[in-house]
Amino acid sequence: MSDFRAVIVDVDGTVVLGDDPIPGAPDGVQRLRDAGLDLLFLSNNPTRRRAQYVERLTPHGIDVDPDRTLTAASVTGEYLAAEHPNDDLFVIGSPGLLDGLRDRGLTVDATPADADVVVGSMDRSFDYETMTRAMWALDDGTTFLGTDPDMTIPTAERAEPGTGAILHALGGVTGREPDRILGKPSRTAAEAALDRLDVPAEDVLVIGDRLDTDIELGRRAGMTTAVVLSGITDRSDLDAAEYAPDHVLDSLADVDELL
Amino acid sequence: MSDFRAVIVDVDGTVVLGDDPIPGAPDGVQRLRDAGLDLLFLSNNPTRRRAQYVERLTPHGIDVDPDRTLTAASVTGEYLAAEHPNDDLFVIGSPGLLDGLRDRGLTVDATPADADVVVGSMDRSFDYETMTRAMWALDDGTTFLGTDPDMTIPTAERAEPGTGAILHALGGVTGREPDRILGKPSRTAAEAALDRLDVPAEDVLVIGDRLDTDIELGRRAGMTTAVVLSGITDRSDLDAAEYAPDHVLDSLADVDELL
Repeated sequence: MSDFRAVIVDVDGTVVLGDDPIPGAPDGVQRLRDAGLDLLFLSNNPTRRRAQYVERLTPHGIDVDPDRTLTAASVTGEYLAAEHPNDDLFVIGSPGLLDGLRDRGLTVDATPADADVVVGSMDRSFDYETMTRAMWALDDGTTFLGTDPDMTIPTAERAEPGTGAILHALGGVTGREPDRILGKPSRTAAEAALDRLDVPAEDVLVIGDRLDTDIELGRRAGMTTAVVLSGITDRSDLDAAEYAPDHVLDSLADVDELL
Repeated sequence: MSDFRAVIVDVDGTVVLGDDPIPGAPDGVQRLRDAGLDLLFLSNNPTRRRAQYVERLTPHGIDVDPDRTLTAASVTGEYLAAEHPNDDLFVIGSPGLLDGLRDRGLTVDATPADADVVVGSMDRSFDYETMTRAMWALDDGTTFLGTDPDMTIPTAERAEPGTGAILHALGGVTGREPDRILGKPSRTAAEAALDRLDVPAEDVLVIGDRLDTDIELGRRAGMTTAVVLSGITDRSDLDAAEYAPDHVLDSLADVDELL
């Protein structure tokens, strides 16, 4: 039997690819649960709220409690509500992110002159005017946050630019790096997950397809790490990586290797 | 008398600020000419064609031959016409840049799948779809060019994002740096200017307000350099700079110090 008491599971590239389940992955999730492990789904997608992940997983036979689902959007919302509850926010982001922040009572439409915090995130309505206004908002005294570091977002067709591209553009014009990026692999995301699971990091296994986010989050926090090769990472990436995950699985279908 | 035979003069921040002449600068230009020097205006603005610079300078009493004016747009057009005359170009850029390239017989509207070359430049119509298509066009075999490195463009109101911001965003998502950036301080821009002036670099003085473009172009090419403090650079920037320009002037009004 495993030494773990809980598992943090990535979603895209690990459980599903677009709208389709990865073969054997729903069954692998069930076997983790059958082994008595507490599961939490943690996605770096900054455009979807937690309830949307419940809707994505349920059709594949995976029942999820919304309280066991976190996204970069929800982690960002929690962080802002805790650290910047009364600040004026200038948010570049998706409708899903903005709605979630407004639901927490946050002000997301600050003018560039009034902004205390600039939040950069993936935004399909991003344009030159947005970039200009964000640049104006980002003067020296403004806090600069990002929802997640992902440069690209996989889609059914092919990759699209992600939050990282937008942060890069803003970083270029302002000469500033974000003060904090909130999704995986940040300590903020790890702590949000550990708070929910209510176990110490050493009792947690993290499973995901990305070395720079899923595996890096686990490495930093002191969790056991398992990469699946059903998403963005292949064996040649593993050979080139500085940090070797504790376990390598072709997919979640092989989860018995961990138990 | 000076040892120079020709002078490369920057425009924005050196001769004009927006629509207004810098006090004393038009007179300084005239004194350089009175000293028998051949003048060439070299701007990193990628949105304006050479004829537009003639129109900008003439109202301030500065007569300019279009053949003695180069912009990042014209340098880029010359380079593409020489090196990529039959390639399919995917160009992110201003209407002025696109018109100039079309006038040279270049194809600027390649589909992402067909693009041989991606050219990134300041573009007020830049949006998420443009960024996505450019990312798709930028596969491994595609040449990646930028018109100029400027992160911001000064405007009458305040700075706007420049070509550098757009190149940064594309570089982030693709993991690639541009293969070549064509405006100042590139060797391509220096050679375009020297070709026009028809003198060796050591007989040329370059005057401009930016250390990283104007002065760097002169340093690389072996020209004499003079920074003016009428634009983006102030004395504290000079103290922090690795390379000291040969001359420092408050503005072109003080050009007699060079003669």
